[in-house]
Amino acid sequence: MLNKNIETFIGCDNEYQESKIVIFGAPFDSTTSFRPGTRFASKAMRSESFGIETYSPYQDKDLEDIAVFDGGDLELSFGNTRKALGQIEEFADKVLDDEKIPCMIGGEHLVTLAAIKAAAKKYPDLHVIQLDAHADLRDDYLGETLSHATVIHRVWDILGDDRIYQFGIRSGDRSEFQWGQDRVFTNKFNFNGLEEVVAKLAGKPVYLTIDLDVLDPSVFPGTGTPEAGGVSFVELLEAILQISNLNIVGCDVNELSPMFDHSGVSTAVACKVLRELLLAISK
Amino acid sequence: MLNKNIETFIGCDNEYQESKIVIFGAPFDSTTSFRPGTRFASKAMRSESFGIETYSPYQDKDLEDIAVFDGGDLELSFGNTRKALGQIEEFADKVLDDEKIPCMIGGEHLVTLAAIKAAAKKYPDLHVIQLDAHADLRDDYLGETLSHATVIHRVWDILGDDRIYQFGIRSGDRSEFQWGQDRVFTNKFNFNGLEEVVAKLAGKPVYLTIDLDVLDPSVFPGTGTPEAGGVSFVELLEAILQISNLNIVGCDVNELSPMFDHSGVSTAVACKVLRELLLAISK
Amino acid sequence: MLNKNIETFIGCDNEYQESKIVIFGAPFDSTTSFRPGTRFASKAMRSESFGIETYSPYQDKDLEDIAVFDGGDLELSFGNTRKALGQIEEFADKVLDDEKIPCMIGGEHLVTLAAIKAAAKKYPDLHVIQLDAHADLRDDYLGETLSHATVIHRVWDILGDDRIYQFGIRSGDRSEFQWGQDRVFTNKFNFNGLEEVVAKLAGKPVYLTIDLDVLDPSVFPGTGTPEAGGVSFVELLEAILQISNLNIVGCDVNELSPMFDHSGVSTAVACKVLRELLLAISK
Amino acid sequence: MLNKNIETFIGCDNEYQESKIVIFGAPFDSTTSFRPGTRFASKAMRSESFGIETYSPYQDKDLEDIAVFDGGDLELSFGNTRKALGQIEEFADKVLDDEKIPCMIGGEHLVTLAAIKAAAKKYPDLHVIQLDAHADLRDDYLGETLSHATVIHRVWDILGDDRIYQFGIRSGDRSEFQWGQDRVFTNKFNFNGLEEVVAKLAGKPVYLTIDLDVLDPSVFPGTGTPEAGGVSFVELLEAILQISNLNIVGCDVNELSPMFDHSGVSTAVACKVLRELLLAISK
Amino acid sequence: MLNKNIETFIGCDNEYQESKIVIFGAPFDSTTSFRPGTRFASKAMRSESFGIETYSPYQDKDLEDIAVFDGGDLELSFGNTRKALGQIEEFADKVLDDEKIPCMIGGEHLVTLAAIKAAAKKYPDLHVIQLDAHADLRDDYLGETLSHATVIHRVWDILGDDRIYQFGIRSGDRSEFQWGQDRVFTNKFNFNGLEEVVAKLAGKPVYLTIDLDVLDPSVFPGTGTPEAGGVSFVELLEAILQISNLNIVGCDVNELSPMFDHSGVSTAVACKVLRELLLAISK
Amino acid sequence: MLNKNIETFIGCDNEYQESKIVIFGAPFDSTTSFRPGTRFASKAMRSESFGIETYSPYQDKDLEDIAVFDGGDLELSFGNTRKALGQIEEFADKVLDDEKIPCMIGGEHLVTLAAIKAAAKKYPDLHVIQLDAHADLRDDYLGETLSHATVIHRVWDILGDDRIYQFGIRSGDRSEFQWGQDRVFTNKFNFNGLEEVVAKLAGKPVYLTIDLDVLDPSVFPGTGTPEAGGVSFVELLEAILQISNLNIVGCDVNELSPMFDHSGVSTAVACKVLRELLLAISK
Repeated sequence: MLNKNIETFIGCDNEYQESKIVIFGAPFDSTTSFRPGTRFASKAMRSESFGIETYSPYQDKDLEDIAVFDGGDLELSFGNTRKALGQIEEFADKVLDDEKIPCMIGGEHLVTLAAIKAAAKKYPDLHVIQLDAHADLRDDYLGETLSHATVIHRVWDILGDDRIYQFGIRSGDRSEFQWGQDRVFTNKFNFNGLEEVVAKLAGKPVYLTIDLDVLDPSVFPGTGTPEAGGVSFVELLEAILQISNLNIVGCDVNELSPMFDHSGVSTAVACKVLRELLLAISK
Repeated sequence: MLNKNIETFIGCDNEYQESKIVIFGAPFDSTTSFRPGTRFASKAMRSESFGIETYSPYQDKDLEDIAVFDGGDLELSFGNTRKALGQIEEFADKVLDDEKIPCMIGGEHLVTLAAIKAAAKKYPDLHVIQLDAHADLRDDYLGETLSHATVIHRVWDILGDDRIYQFGIRSGDRSEFQWGQDRVFTNKFNFNGLEEVVAKLAGKPVYLTIDLDVLDPSVFPGTGTPEAGGVSFVELLEAILQISNLNIVGCDVNELSPMFDHSGVSTAVACKVLRELLLAISK
Repeated sequence: MLNKNIETFIGCDNEYQESKIVIFGAPFDSTTSFRPGTRFASKAMRSESFGIETYSPYQDKDLEDIAVFDGGDLELSFGNTRKALGQIEEFADKVLDDEKIPCMIGGEHLVTLAAIKAAAKKYPDLHVIQLDAHADLRDDYLGETLSHATVIHRVWDILGDDRIYQFGIRSGDRSEFQWGQDRVFTNKFNFNGLEEVVAKLAGKPVYLTIDLDVLDPSVFPGTGTPEAGGVSFVELLEAILQISNLNIVGCDVNELSPMFDHSGVSTAVACKVLRELLLAISK
Repeated sequence: MLNKNIETFIGCDNEYQESKIVIFGAPFDSTTSFRPGTRFASKAMRSESFGIETYSPYQDKDLEDIAVFDGGDLELSFGNTRKALGQIEEFADKVLDDEKIPCMIGGEHLVTLAAIKAAAKKYPDLHVIQLDAHADLRDDYLGETLSHATVIHRVWDILGDDRIYQFGIRSGDRSEFQWGQDRVFTNKFNFNGLEEVVAKLAGKPVYLTIDLDVLDPSVFPGTGTPEAGGVSFVELLEAILQISNLNIVGCDVNELSPMFDHSGVSTAVACKVLRELLLAISK
Repeated sequence: MLNKNIETFIGCDNEYQESKIVIFGAPFDSTTSFRPGTRFASKAMRSESFGIETYSPYQDKDLEDIAVFDGGDLELSFGNTRKALGQIEEFADKVLDDEKIPCMIGGEHLVTLAAIKAAAKKYPDLHVIQLDAHADLRDDYLGETLSHATVIHRVWDILGDDRIYQFGIRSGDRSEFQWGQDRVFTNKFNFNGLEEVVAKLAGKPVYLTIDLDVLDPSVFPGTGTPEAGGVSFVELLEAILQISNLNIVGCDVNELSPMFDHSGVSTAVACKVLRELLLAISK
Repeated sequence: MLNKNIETFIGCDNEYQESKIVIFGAPFDSTTSFRPGTRFASKAMRSESFGIETYSPYQDKDLEDIAVFDGGDLELSFGNTRKALGQIEEFADKVLDDEKIPCMIGGEHLVTLAAIKAAAKKYPDLHVIQLDAHADLRDDYLGETLSHATVIHRVWDILGDDRIYQFGIRSGDRSEFQWGQDRVFTNKFNFNGLEEVVAKLAGKPVYLTIDLDVLDPSVFPGTGTPEAGGVSFVELLEAILQISNLNIVGCDVNELSPMFDHSGVSTAVACKVLRELLLAISK
């Protein structure tokens, strides 16, 4: 009669079968070179999501009206990057096979590689939109090819030229920007040009990866490598709404690090971004 | 010869008799459903007020030039909401009877109900301007009719239609917004339309309640339920200056929660809002 | 096939029917007069319990070997003390009716009143052992009769003289100690005399309430009113083992306040106390 | 009719004339070489004192029964050490002239120099008992003769040999210990030998200075230079009770640094030490 | 073969001889009246600088391409303001004598006085541009003439009228603003008019002092006296780029207080400001 | 003439050639399953070491009198455990080849494996003494054989039976304790039996690994998995002094996690443990 304690993101307590979108956590941060802690993001977001409403006055939509399943966190191998990525890919494969949209909560940005790998198998014509402060285009980082700093280069290894669109980038080394020039679309500092990109990608399968550090650190202090000069919450919200007109086949929000979020504002904003994202892509 | 230790908000050390404005703290947060702690706001603000100046370069006025009395904090019954509200109302009654302006430091937003109740007895034609992130229009919250989430509905019970003007609202459930539609004026997200409202309320007695979470969480992280997408300090300041042209008969600032304000910026901004508010309404 | 995210205290993921002990959270702190926050204890303990092992080298027992159900947190009315206590009592009634042992995670100490009320209905000869820094024997606190500072006086109202045994008490006002003198057994500062009490209560139904602030604040800083001069973890552990020889029909641990536990040591010690308590009473 | 907000240490709200003991804060930390912040101690202690009781179950005495005046904090010149010490000395002079006992809340330990200077003028036969982790016997610190690290050497300049008794010392450089050998009584690590010292000083005027870092950092983390291996709260309490048999003509507690006391346990223990000290010396 | 541990600001590991710019820390905060802690800024910035890149996408320049020496922190006398300022001046003298640009990391703003004193000896026609929230024009502060609140008045004592240009000022007492009116150029709140000032100062030797609290507290919470209503990072960056067209002969960034920067965003933004400043002035 | 900024542990600024002991940091925590952050330990300890003295009143010895080199932190590959361990081993090889004692600052406990591997190559008869709260004897952890939870099992793989002596162990799963029974010497909870072990190992080469979480969490809160019921600082100190009578050929202190050490007491105690360890083994 009584049930064991269930904890999902607010308003996302549907069963798997009935849901179109599947939330899951990928609590991995082993390659984080500077300040770890993103592994706690998904737990913190579930817990703190009860501080926000299910209703969005921006979209006039309510999480109660859509069907989202929250499968909890994957149990990942800390310190074995390859194995952890395999575990994520396997889960994403299953969600995609069941014709649902995987919506992953990172973790460090490297986890995106596994989800995109799964999506690219299902959708060979996959395109990627990346909202981020960091280019993440290094080929290796201190000798490692699998790293939060190389993740989009690895995505390029899979997808090739003209498939990746970056916005908000304001940090990287010189060689990253040079390497990317003819291979990925990079808009520095803000979301200028997003409208054109959205027009161009109409009808294509799109994976949207949101590194929350694209937000200004004043809005989102709780992250490992905060980069001054970012976008506002409303700018990010508007970008998400625009992008949601596309055929989103997978998405993620990543790089929340609750340990650096003493006031809780970063977790609260991450919850709101996720709510708006879920409402936007559920059509 | 030596006096016992006196602590008032900076520049507000006048005697009761000579003062036009009366500051008092209402350290109550018992109905806070998410993260309590606003009970500490008034103490923190008095203590930290010595980090700001008494002089405002915005208004070219100085707290030293006006007469404000700081009566300290009311001693309220935790866990007995009705009794606590009664204690606040009684104090506000006295201040109003003495032809002074009560300026309350909350506490959770529910304390506003008691102060408005007092003001409505003295000024039957009372109007309310609410600057807030949350609509606070629920009829009950988890079965409770007296709650920080129902406070403005309760105020409506007293004042009725067309007396309440909300600005900055960006959170609520769908039914709140629907209920409010024909009963209160609600401007979502920002202060658009404030000028018209001020023009319309000219000459009327007005109670101004400022839930500080109307500010963006980047500016004001130290609050229980931070809501991304808020206004800036300068926008709030300009709204206060506009509203101060009205006949303000009572006011409050509330929802500062010092426990979530590790850097102290929220307390500092609350102090500055209070300084500007005091200077603006003291004519 | 996939299940919604379930979160229980580590090793306590049995179904209700098969379990002898039932964990539930009572996240209530509305009467806390000083520093609130114990409402977050049960959530924090579930989450952090994965930092400890299920196996106790002290007792050479393992949570995996016993059957405990974790029902999650009750949804309680903040700001309405009477109603919240009623909700707790109702839940405890059910657990007791099903011949299980309720093991409540507070919340402030007042929640104990409701659980004991339920237990006293089922076991009229109920005795109470209280491990605590505070006497909690006031008749009222600032006029309120239902308060964390009056809870054991209220328990006495139910049980009467010679039923309550306090240990570790090192804070209270003079009148509390005087009032208690002929009504409850009070051992100040430590656990001296516990052996005799255990001998005396052999065979009786006993409710054990552990206010974790009985621990020294060095061991357990994360609580609202830390009182220097408390017992060590090992002393508390030994007391629990002794008491567990009795017929424990209900128990609770309370007053963990995660907001004041920045390092996490208090939550970790609370988890370990709960593990040892569960292992000790499951015979 | 209404009074301005008064804040005193709990139970210390007597008028100056009627009081035998005078509390005052000396919020100075300008010479602190490592981590500043003790300037906030007195304010924090007043505020947090309402978390403890006025009654001591250790001494069966109550602050309500004795007469203590709390004059608040002196306004001291930051960055001008000599002037600040002069301001403290002047205040202590007045208290002593009025035949009262000054009880100072530091601030860094250097403030003790000024209070002892005042006491030595009134009581030429003054002796000093110092409970401390640090010897504080350097002649200069980085060239400065007035420093928290030289304060007891400076006291020796005034009082000379065989007047200073140190207990609990567990940090210093080699030369300090060597210099002190024939000039001050130093008991390292604990309070051994205190009984003999108390016997020897019977009838003499004694100034008691308690650097709270004599406590183990587990008990008192909130201080600038925590030194592992200190005494427990109960050991300090017993030392105070022993010393209070002497003729205490002045005393202080110092080196609480609230910024490093996130859980509040250090401030709480400091409040309790002060309560016990006040009760013990008020005969 | 192995070297002792060297720690410099990222990308600033050149030898003294080969460098045009010399970084050094002035960890002094003894006159800070409100919340101390800026003494930790330079250490924190060196350590956290490894979270940013050496390359600036704003200027398309890299710290690896320019020659900067980081001499570490000066060892300053705490509590002896005059001596500490002398030590700073002496170091700045040497750097200037060697035809290098001193780039000081404060410390409280008073340290700027010493560096400007040195620069004014070498460049008698020195002008000063100050980006700051506070006017710092008091003649004395609580009787002290050497204080973080008087530093620019003291600079005026050296340079005289029409040599000081303030931007972003939004706090001060009335008399400061009045005194400054005919003596220094003050632009309140923002950087309006900077273009004209830069045009006017073309060819003159200029010392640039950046009190980082000119930034809005949302961007830069980690400072002793946060003042709401400040500029954004991008606005500050643009101001620096404009000013760097002038002949910068010395500069500093000051008033970062890492103790109030729990999330690390303030230290990160300070590092980025320093990176951009170094890149901008190295021509 | 001027030197780049050098930062070593206090009193450990000797050159490599002249030193008998070599300190180095191994900032690795990628396999940490619960709360990461030990990568910051060595940096924090160097910085905070200036809060302690170089002189030990316990041993009457001074770091100034012995020769210790501090080589800074190794640059390790995050997320590639095998490579990181190889880098540590290589460095330890060199130190041992040069007939010096490596003294490593972790990092998570897994780093010990690499240092012991190096030492076992040089000293085939190597024995290990482990002071720790956790047995660390698992064969794998979530499938991984290289983990902070398996490190001593891996050490056993190298050294075999009867070479490992554990003290203070109070956490592990049942199978660990069972597996270890005939292979390693395990003393639970405290240091009983250490004297006999020291007598037995006289003359043998010994590697001492101190997982600082052997200390009680009250003394050492700043660690990833605090375990109540640990030893005091003085108990650990006495154990170190006893063990230092042996032929220590390598040692480490590990598992300090500064992010969970808000008050700084854990870092301070870690510094003191290292000071006492260095003084004790330098004969």
